[in-house]
Amino acid sequence: MISVGIVGGTGYTGVELLRLLLRHSSVKVTVLTSRTEAGRRVDDMFPSLRGHTDLQYSDLDIELLKQCDVVFFATPHGVAMKHAEALVAANTKIIDLAADFRLQDLKQFEKWYGLEHACPEILKQSAYGLSELNRDQIKTASVIGNPGCYPTTVQLGLAPVLKASTALVDPSSIIIDAKSGVSGAGRKASLGMIYTENADNFKAYGVAGHRHHPEIVEALENISGQKNVFNHILFVPHLVPMIRGMLSTIYVDLTEEGVQADLQGLYEEFYKNEQFVDVMPAGSTPETRSVRGANQLRIALYKPQPKKLVILVAQDNLVKGAAGQAVQNMNIMFGFVENQGLDGIGLLP
Amino acid sequence: MISVGIVGGTGYTGVELLRLLLRHSSVKVTVLTSRTEAGRRVDDMFPSLRGHTDLQYSDLDIELLKQCDVVFFATPHGVAMKHAEALVAANTKIIDLAADFRLQDLKQFEKWYGLEHACPEILKQSAYGLSELNRDQIKTASVIGNPGCYPTTVQLGLAPVLKASTALVDPSSIIIDAKSGVSGAGRKASLGMIYTENADNFKAYGVAGHRHHPEIVEALENISGQKNVFNHILFVPHLVPMIRGMLSTIYVDLTEEGVQADLQGLYEEFYKNEQFVDVMPAGSTPETRSVRGANQLRIALYKPQPKKLVILVAQDNLVKGAAGQAVQNMNIMFGFVENQGLDGIGLLP
Amino acid sequence: MISVGIVGGTGYTGVELLRLLLRHSSVKVTVLTSRTEAGRRVDDMFPSLRGHTDLQYSDLDIELLKQCDVVFFATPHGVAMKHAEALVAANTKIIDLAADFRLQDLKQFEKWYGLEHACPEILKQSAYGLSELNRDQIKTASVIGNPGCYPTTVQLGLAPVLKASTALVDPSSIIIDAKSGVSGAGRKASLGMIYTENADNFKAYGVAGHRHHPEIVEALENISGQKNVFNHILFVPHLVPMIRGMLSTIYVDLTEEGVQADLQGLYEEFYKNEQFVDVMPAGSTPETRSVRGANQLRIALYKPQPKKLVILVAQDNLVKGAAGQAVQNMNIMFGFVENQGLDGIGLLP
Amino acid sequence: MISVGIVGGTGYTGVELLRLLLRHSSVKVTVLTSRTEAGRRVDDMFPSLRGHTDLQYSDLDIELLKQCDVVFFATPHGVAMKHAEALVAANTKIIDLAADFRLQDLKQFEKWYGLEHACPEILKQSAYGLSELNRDQIKTASVIGNPGCYPTTVQLGLAPVLKASTALVDPSSIIIDAKSGVSGAGRKASLGMIYTENADNFKAYGVAGHRHHPEIVEALENISGQKNVFNHILFVPHLVPMIRGMLSTIYVDLTEEGVQADLQGLYEEFYKNEQFVDVMPAGSTPETRSVRGANQLRIALYKPQPKKLVILVAQDNLVKGAAGQAVQNMNIMFGFVENQGLDGIGLLP
Repeated sequence: MISVGIVGGTGYTGVELLRLLLRHSSVKVTVLTSRTEAGRRVDDMFPSLRGHTDLQYSDLDIELLKQCDVVFFATPHGVAMKHAEALVAANTKIIDLAADFRLQDLKQFEKWYGLEHACPEILKQSAYGLSELNRDQIKTASVIGNPGCYPTTVQLGLAPVLKASTALVDPSSIIIDAKSGVSGAGRKASLGMIYTENADNFKAYGVAGHRHHPEIVEALENISGQKNVFNHILFVPHLVPMIRGMLSTIYVDLTEEGVQADLQGLYEEFYKNEQFVDVMPAGSTPETRSVRGANQLRIALYKPQPKKLVILVAQDNLVKGAAGQAVQNMNIMFGFVENQGLDGIGLLP
Repeated sequence: MISVGIVGGTGYTGVELLRLLLRHSSVKVTVLTSRTEAGRRVDDMFPSLRGHTDLQYSDLDIELLKQCDVVFFATPHGVAMKHAEALVAANTKIIDLAADFRLQDLKQFEKWYGLEHACPEILKQSAYGLSELNRDQIKTASVIGNPGCYPTTVQLGLAPVLKASTALVDPSSIIIDAKSGVSGAGRKASLGMIYTENADNFKAYGVAGHRHHPEIVEALENISGQKNVFNHILFVPHLVPMIRGMLSTIYVDLTEEGVQADLQGLYEEFYKNEQFVDVMPAGSTPETRSVRGANQLRIALYKPQPKKLVILVAQDNLVKGAAGQAVQNMNIMFGFVENQGLDGIGLLP
Repeated sequence: MISVGIVGGTGYTGVELLRLLLRHSSVKVTVLTSRTEAGRRVDDMFPSLRGHTDLQYSDLDIELLKQCDVVFFATPHGVAMKHAEALVAANTKIIDLAADFRLQDLKQFEKWYGLEHACPEILKQSAYGLSELNRDQIKTASVIGNPGCYPTTVQLGLAPVLKASTALVDPSSIIIDAKSGVSGAGRKASLGMIYTENADNFKAYGVAGHRHHPEIVEALENISGQKNVFNHILFVPHLVPMIRGMLSTIYVDLTEEGVQADLQGLYEEFYKNEQFVDVMPAGSTPETRSVRGANQLRIALYKPQPKKLVILVAQDNLVKGAAGQAVQNMNIMFGFVENQGLDGIGLLP
Repeated sequence: MISVGIVGGTGYTGVELLRLLLRHSSVKVTVLTSRTEAGRRVDDMFPSLRGHTDLQYSDLDIELLKQCDVVFFATPHGVAMKHAEALVAANTKIIDLAADFRLQDLKQFEKWYGLEHACPEILKQSAYGLSELNRDQIKTASVIGNPGCYPTTVQLGLAPVLKASTALVDPSSIIIDAKSGVSGAGRKASLGMIYTENADNFKAYGVAGHRHHPEIVEALENISGQKNVFNHILFVPHLVPMIRGMLSTIYVDLTEEGVQADLQGLYEEFYKNEQFVDVMPAGSTPETRSVRGANQLRIALYKPQPKKLVILVAQDNLVKGAAGQAVQNMNIMFGFVENQGLDGIGLLP
């Protein structure tokens, strides 16, 4: 049984972490902080937790956090890095669900997040928490940068072809047309997020540039071992009038080898031991509701034109795209069975 | 470990039963039937189950069902009663999620369901599966009529005042203004149920009469021990553009004793040992999303006028209103811990 | 052709007024104010207006407003009353879509809105803008208090029985279970209003008391000519996950005369000349989508129990419940055909 | 005043045609047919029309249709072509909202629609009703094939670059990631269309092939005057949980000339006289709700990478994508002002 702290427990990733961790049999959540709600019971703010916990929010007290085995940061960008040194020194592990430990390229970090990095040395030793692809580094890391929701779909969607021994796709041709439910924007009092501005509506956003673009580029470089070929890929996110769920439609040109390859077989083989990545049978279309509330990502492949591959990737942005993958990383770090606390079945309908 | 059969596994209550039972550690689902999908894997129809089961649909084979310890009927009305005798004779318990064993009054059953009852003797010995109120009968019954979704909210919302030692409310004054998500209508190809006819829309339905009215009347008579005082209560259901969730707003006139009584205290006391019934603090408003996917019912009380009580009751119609309560009844029948397989936390958001 | 000013053009009632007034052939909108957006084109904020207007927001300039024939206030409560004297003196008519001129009872106004009234003398001479019931006063008034959305449904739903020559209903028995789409809460950056807090969710709110309760009480007193019999009626609003639309389900006990009366005939007769009030055939259930975007209110009557009347009333809260009725009142005040600019057909689907 | 017939008045395009035509001052709808609802009032089926028409459905009587000046077919594919000869002979014009007159390539028609064409000669003389691009042919045609909803967005989104005097884009690189509201699937009792299967969900469909692909290919060939370069473009439609609305995100590689060109200026110039096509200012993102109920299509352009163009195109699939464009075509055919009956402002919110 390990003790867990959550910093920033009033957002959607915070309450989602609680939903998962309160049912995890090797974990006890001992600290839950909030800048604004200290002293309030968490189940007063989130009635879904009534009957499941007596936790109260507290102010962020670094001494209390040091006593935890692991601390999740479900905070805005820039918070985790301020406290990383102290926690690492105290042998407390960190899983940051914000962006502080996602980008090794400090210039990109500063450009897109407008922050100077507070602990570049710790960043260098941190692991990028895409569980299926970086399991070995995650096992031994002290600090995990939990991936962004969109980048998770792109990496798991492309890894089998990018890691293949022969070049199957043209990396510069990648286009990611991504769609997310509104919870991806967090829990904030913002005019653009109110019900009446989003319901029965669809739009693109961030077309000129989105923070997940540099994360995707760096991650695909790491996966493929190729530099400078992904800089010009297109990533266009859209907002779907739904609460949870994310679907990325990825378009990529096939090489001659790619045209000949058994891609369905390649993907099935690549993920055959991964319980959280589901390569669906040919002809399937993954629906976001099939993973609602579940730490699951589903992939389907199409070749509607001879030289083009279309990869459909669906996940729950709050689970495999955030809190679920964070718990998966914790399981890896502490040697728990990887699906502990993560074997819930999604709500369909 | 008991073996479980599910008859009618292609509807929403069927897949919801599977979601719960596949995670129940004392249960193995061994039979799953469908008239139309025999031979098909259930996770082909419901991809949320991929990775969680290899079950296939089979035709209804009474011999196979007899080998089960308990059979759930997630079928249209009229199916369970046809097979009840054979199963009871084989010592297989039955939990019917349809209406065959809800009404003891055969005339009402025939009037509202247009069916002659196939086994009135078994009906007489069956128990009405409102878990919290009928636990003793459920424990020993062979056949359970699982309550309708609306009646569950009404009974648990009114039981504390109707069972009080003094008359606190005027039973004839009861008005139930009920609202349900669309999943309450099941999974059927019907024009009135399509997305474009229900989204961004609100309406009442069944105002002139609804099958749950006689069930509510009979149940309230049993709870209160009073006959003929509930016949003229009003029950008006409405359809909400949401998937899951049910809220009943119950209006009732208080007697002089009722005006004086500490009703909040009465409710809290009445349900103090019930983990699935949550009497919220005064001033709360239960939201359906706070119970999304959870076997939980929440109640809040208001006295906006001196002699009027307003009772708000929220549940997930597919869980506490259907499949969850069915599993709760199974747990009671087989002596399992009552929340086994039912301790999941709802998805909020 | 009259010149029209709109004060507060950045909310939903503001843009709805524009949608209607820009298509009204006897009107030219000349002034559109905003405290925060002065200098910005309105179609930059509301792209639905692109191609339909070149209007820009300006600061509130009372001299400019005085040159208008009529000024609509689509502002928070308390703004219109500050400018009423100046405008009335300049012979500019006022239609206030907020509450400043809804309640003649100043104590109730101060209690519920927390404001001292700025111009009680003008209030006394103002007319309450429920078009169908107060047409004569509206014709000659300088200042109109446009009704609240909920009170509009209640008044039009109850007027025929309350104005009948014999007592058909028990006024103290009235219960209004009302349901509104989210746009009723306006366009505000508020956590409680964001998409993820409202979608796929249903709840009651304001159960302990709502500002529309005193407005309903005063209005029903005026309609019926009876004082002190409506004080204890119940009014419980609920929030529906939809953009527009409102349905009030009104429950009332019938007197002996009421039980005998042809209520369907009474309603049809009462509204036979009202194009914006539709008494639907017996057995109908009005859906909110049937009035989406239309200045229309639909009523259906049920007697599910011999002595109980259930009145269903549907409208679009932003049209007949706000901007549409405001334009209807303007048409009455200026002698235009009453449906000018208001004959659009609702969007179904 | 012309007389208009509508064949197939029980679907969403049928009721949308009525919404528009009943407010068109030069038109009288005289015939409205339905195979299943003959004798029923249309406002009984679609209560939004109550108070606006007394029309009843009738059986399809070719003699009655011949007396119309124009007949709209809002029917399944294959109906209009059966009646085209008789109507053309009677000098009655035809606007078919199904696919019978969309494809000149008969093999493609037969392949995708499974029907042999009933009147190839009439097809040859028919005009493809993309109003802005084919105005001259539409003016004089007897028969119009009203474009599919997706193809409308693609053609208007790409026409300026495809019609430019120099090659600005690589035609073979076109990828169309399209998203539609559920009303695009029509009004049918189908399990896949029910509320609970679509709400809070997102998915691709028809990835392996969709009927609008050949229509897009043929249309782009006609627009560009180039054959055989569009056969391998990608078109992937997705289903959005909303009622109305369509957004196509179009990706295309720029040539060297294209990289240098002022594309924003090109588009603005191309559509400067088109009231129903709105080229939004640089940096805008068209939202579907900005055109809800309006015959309007909005375009925005992005160059997120130096050699890539992203074109966002939004419309209401039932209006500019179906019934609205059909009325626009009627206006062109009969010499009415092109926006007659089509100047309504969209509902936002």
